[in-house]
Amino acid sequence: MFEGPLQDAIDEFSRLPGVGPKSAQRIAFHLLQAEPEDLERLTGALSRLQKGVRYCRICHNVSSEEVCRICADSTRDPSLVCVVEESKDIQVIERTGEYDGRYHVLGGALDPLNGIGPKELNVTALVQRIGGRVDDVVAADGTVAEPPEITEVIIATDPNTEGEATAAYLGRLLKEFPGLTVSRLASGIPMGGDLEFVDELTLSRAFEGRTAIR
Amino acid sequence: MFEGPLQDAIDEFSRLPGVGPKSAQRIAFHLLQAEPEDLERLTGALSRLQKGVRYCRICHNVSSEEVCRICADSTRDPSLVCVVEESKDIQVIERTGEYDGRYHVLGGALDPLNGIGPKELNVTALVQRIGGRVDDVVAADGTVAEPPEITEVIIATDPNTEGEATAAYLGRLLKEFPGLTVSRLASGIPMGGDLEFVDELTLSRAFEGRTAIR
Repeated sequence: MFEGPLQDAIDEFSRLPGVGPKSAQRIAFHLLQAEPEDLERLTGALSRLQKGVRYCRICHNVSSEEVCRICADSTRDPSLVCVVEESKDIQVIERTGEYDGRYHVLGGALDPLNGIGPKELNVTALVQRIGGRVDDVVAADGTVAEPPEITEVIIATDPNTEGEATAAYLGRLLKEFPGLTVSRLASGIPMGGDLEFVDELTLSRAFEGRTAIR
Repeated sequence: MFEGPLQDAIDEFSRLPGVGPKSAQRIAFHLLQAEPEDLERLTGALSRLQKGVRYCRICHNVSSEEVCRICADSTRDPSLVCVVEESKDIQVIERTGEYDGRYHVLGGALDPLNGIGPKELNVTALVQRIGGRVDDVVAADGTVAEPPEITEVIIATDPNTEGEATAAYLGRLLKEFPGLTVSRLASGIPMGGDLEFVDELTLSRAFEGRTAIR
């Protein structure tokens, strides 16, 4: 409908997830009339995005340094590792304020039909961490912290086919470490939900995982 | 929550209209994992946006050439000019397929409290067009078309305080052209609506503008 650079920008915004044609148009017009500095700041942030983002050497979380803030935080329990599919899952868990261990980002879930096997995920790196060969943190004064002993791995992959398969696979794989506890986040009815609207699979999981209240 | 370039990109997307923090995060992660060419195409479109967009010399619509496609289209009626606030309003009117005249983009509406007076809008340019001093179109073969005589100006500013004030102002201003018809889009109950949910002002406008059906 529009011409030249404006239509190009609208087309590009329409390709982003969750942005429909109307929103794309609104954003493009907004930026057309924005202060040039504001537009430059956005363009600059995008140019730096892929080249500037690094991944933590220990947990593979997105990071601006070699070791991410969570792994570098000495107040957190290094013996606990929570395995997630993506970096964004970390944020959701952090928001609960319930967990003070570290993380391990797989970079996805097993999905053989789409060519995602264990080699496409950060699985070897997880095994090496548990084997005590990765987690050394070099402090600012040059001292190297000993890799901590990991006593529990909490698998927090998504509760869908791929995530369940990944959890089962990791459960089998980590049997080679006899002293290690491997756990999975509980499945069950969501808090604040209505029993009437809970699907059968979730409800049967809630029965399996029922806990004694006295 | 995130670090470095990723958080910068999330922050920048959050500033765009209609993009909340969750969507901004989703877009940033999408682009982080996108093909580098896709990200470069978006960055490129944004860099060209403000510098590359031109405004039609005749109607001030956004354009990639000196004269926009609508003004350059010789099949359209040059004696009709529809006055809109913004370029995006043109798209809405074009979609009806009802109008085959030209447009004039004011670039906003009168809003004295925010310092928008007639000088901040393309009002002088409208008066010059009607006076026959702007609409000459130079064809590809170098021939110059005579500026057409404009016989009707349809004011299609938004039906809110600023748009109504702008319409009233233009109505007074254009009295200096005695042969010119100046009209305003009809206000009334929207089609497909329910009378019960129509506000009082719209309903009273619908009474004022009632039309005979036989």
